[in-house]
Amino acid sequence: MKVSEKLHKDAKPVWDKICAHPFVVELFQGTLPIEKFKTYILHDYSYLLGAIRNFSIIASRADSADVVREVVEIAHLEATGEFQGYEEMLHTLGYTMDDAMRVEPFPTNLSYRSFLLTTSSLGTSQEALASVLPCFWSYLDIAVDHRDALSKNTNKIYVDWASVYLSGDYRQLVNKLRHLVDSTCEDFPYKRLRTLFLTASRYEYMYWDAAYKQESWPI
Amino acid sequence: MKVSEKLHKDAKPVWDKICAHPFVVELFQGTLPIEKFKTYILHDYSYLLGAIRNFSIIASRADSADVVREVVEIAHLEATGEFQGYEEMLHTLGYTMDDAMRVEPFPTNLSYRSFLLTTSSLGTSQEALASVLPCFWSYLDIAVDHRDALSKNTNKIYVDWASVYLSGDYRQLVNKLRHLVDSTCEDFPYKRLRTLFLTASRYEYMYWDAAYKQESWPI
Amino acid sequence: MKVSEKLHKDAKPVWDKICAHPFVVELFQGTLPIEKFKTYILHDYSYLLGAIRNFSIIASRADSADVVREVVEIAHLEATGEFQGYEEMLHTLGYTMDDAMRVEPFPTNLSYRSFLLTTSSLGTSQEALASVLPCFWSYLDIAVDHRDALSKNTNKIYVDWASVYLSGDYRQLVNKLRHLVDSTCEDFPYKRLRTLFLTASRYEYMYWDAAYKQESWPI
Amino acid sequence: MKVSEKLHKDAKPVWDKICAHPFVVELFQGTLPIEKFKTYILHDYSYLLGAIRNFSIIASRADSADVVREVVEIAHLEATGEFQGYEEMLHTLGYTMDDAMRVEPFPTNLSYRSFLLTTSSLGTSQEALASVLPCFWSYLDIAVDHRDALSKNTNKIYVDWASVYLSGDYRQLVNKLRHLVDSTCEDFPYKRLRTLFLTASRYEYMYWDAAYKQESWPI
Repeated sequence: MKVSEKLHKDAKPVWDKICAHPFVVELFQGTLPIEKFKTYILHDYSYLLGAIRNFSIIASRADSADVVREVVEIAHLEATGEFQGYEEMLHTLGYTMDDAMRVEPFPTNLSYRSFLLTTSSLGTSQEALASVLPCFWSYLDIAVDHRDALSKNTNKIYVDWASVYLSGDYRQLVNKLRHLVDSTCEDFPYKRLRTLFLTASRYEYMYWDAAYKQESWPI
Repeated sequence: MKVSEKLHKDAKPVWDKICAHPFVVELFQGTLPIEKFKTYILHDYSYLLGAIRNFSIIASRADSADVVREVVEIAHLEATGEFQGYEEMLHTLGYTMDDAMRVEPFPTNLSYRSFLLTTSSLGTSQEALASVLPCFWSYLDIAVDHRDALSKNTNKIYVDWASVYLSGDYRQLVNKLRHLVDSTCEDFPYKRLRTLFLTASRYEYMYWDAAYKQESWPI
Repeated sequence: MKVSEKLHKDAKPVWDKICAHPFVVELFQGTLPIEKFKTYILHDYSYLLGAIRNFSIIASRADSADVVREVVEIAHLEATGEFQGYEEMLHTLGYTMDDAMRVEPFPTNLSYRSFLLTTSSLGTSQEALASVLPCFWSYLDIAVDHRDALSKNTNKIYVDWASVYLSGDYRQLVNKLRHLVDSTCEDFPYKRLRTLFLTASRYEYMYWDAAYKQESWPI
Repeated sequence: MKVSEKLHKDAKPVWDKICAHPFVVELFQGTLPIEKFKTYILHDYSYLLGAIRNFSIIASRADSADVVREVVEIAHLEATGEFQGYEEMLHTLGYTMDDAMRVEPFPTNLSYRSFLLTTSSLGTSQEALASVLPCFWSYLDIAVDHRDALSKNTNKIYVDWASVYLSGDYRQLVNKLRHLVDSTCEDFPYKRLRTLFLTASRYEYMYWDAAYKQESWPI
């Protein structure tokens, strides 16, 4: 079994709970209160910027030229296409980029992002790649799981948002990330990758939960 | 007003809540359930190791030789005296270092630590120094605030633990950190330092709260 | 005067010597022995890979989202177009990418590259940007200075190579880098930028010289 | 054979040339012109500061708590005892610390230091440890090799300087570094360690040579 498959299998219980989380379920069904979605999108700015920084760090420290170049490609994709799509969604919701930049990230957002950036800054590129995988891959799994609900969803904003994760381009991106993990991590101590993959998966769950509960700083 | 004084003043509302948190109050009064203290101590291992890494990063990236050397001194203090004191406390509580190493950090522990390490890895040494200050300084303020309660506290373990933060050595360490912030941050954009100082203060509060509630991962 | 203009002016004596270096003069005239050019190209592999890593580090640590995204764009350009052009030149000279990867970088190559990567890893993004500017900008200046010689140059390989640096795309890249320096460094201590810009300029000179003399490790 | 022994054996031809370099030979015999020694000492400031930064980076990124703490100990030793000894030598030679800080490092100094800092910033702690070993270990080998010459050396300054490397403390430091390499690198791809160890050894040779020739920037 490939490393990414093992990781996926080991994190299954967590991912099942992610797929069943009310934010996710209601989003794909179209019943999620728009205010919750707006909060989620506004806060996604910090996460997206963090992801671009994160892939840049991974690129800078990868062993082989091939991995360096592939990860730069992903950083670039996040900094261009993904960023542009994000800006359009902001406008659809009546916000500007400045609104998003002014938002103070809620605790789980800052914490998850910091976990990823610490892993890439202090760990190896293998550990960093294993840590970013749950975010990308779980969004694909979520979309596939809720495909039926989505086909009956009449909330255009949610349908547009979710359809991205069912596109061939997105599947290709996830496959590229899985391949990066599989090709670089084969000889890497599995236990360390597993801990990081599980932790990132847990943060994914907590992120959805924080958005649903409109989490704020306790003081 | 010096930078550290301004930061301290701006974070006062948060620090007041830290001083009034039940974990802190009960610890200094001697009424804190020992299980809560044990959890706190066991989890402190990851935090302490993170602090040593953090000061090492700050040292590596400080501008002047003097700051490099002073921060190495602090890293060394954490890695020797502080670490030894920690090990002794573990033994007093019936644990070994291996027990502490096996503990899976609770979310707020990992999150706070990651926030500090991300700040030092990606930010400037000024930003990193402003971020580590609340941890050290608030422990001093807490100890001073609860000095009377401590004098009536008959729980030897808690008294031994708390007395460290009233020692001259500890006050000197806090002063050294304040001086590092004051001497390097004068010309640094205050707003960025303030945000980081406040965020670290909030994490301090959340850390006490997590220990009190015996926080665990939701999944 | 803008920061980049001041830096350019202060490094003029070094850049004049770069423009007058026999490797440069003979390359644009078409009289450079092909063996020297082959060495230069083969060794450029490490430098190019280092540049991709370097821009990735700068992107990861830049303050603003705009700078992060612009620098990722440059890293991507180096990892795609620039890399592809490099591979084609290798083939023109009868080499494969594997040949380039097997080459042991000569001392000045490793040293210059390490200087740039250390600056971006331990310094600020401003310092890192000021350090990478001489490489890109001096190639433009060289090409403009030797435009006449190039128009009479009949060595197709050299003409193809040099023409890139006279293209509108290349000028735009240099302008983008200058703009990044000008927009981020205005309030940064000039003296530190100047030292780094001068050091990078000196390494540029030493790099041409090392290629001309077919530098190797003394032991 | 332990990793450090293999590395030592593979670098023997380079180390033999280091031991036979005129700077080294004349230093231990007492015939080295004092001006050359003065240059060497003045420039050592940047190298020493770089070493403190370097060990700090290694500490921050080491896998295990034990290695973190041992490397912090070494960083601290460099920042205190080693730094103090350096300052005393400066005074003996009629210089102040300010004189040393004002010196512009010669190319080989900056290059070697940058190579070490790039390795620790972008590589693993194993690679970084293998890279710093030649500096420390070769000084011990040099001192042992030239012990007889030293016993007849009447130049008090040189004798005082060289005796440090024959002390039990210094041997213990080298053994600690070797042990760190041996205990962390056993399962690490040897070829990558070998390349780094050899490169650092070559820079060691070039550093002595640069000091002997009073190297300066060509422009």
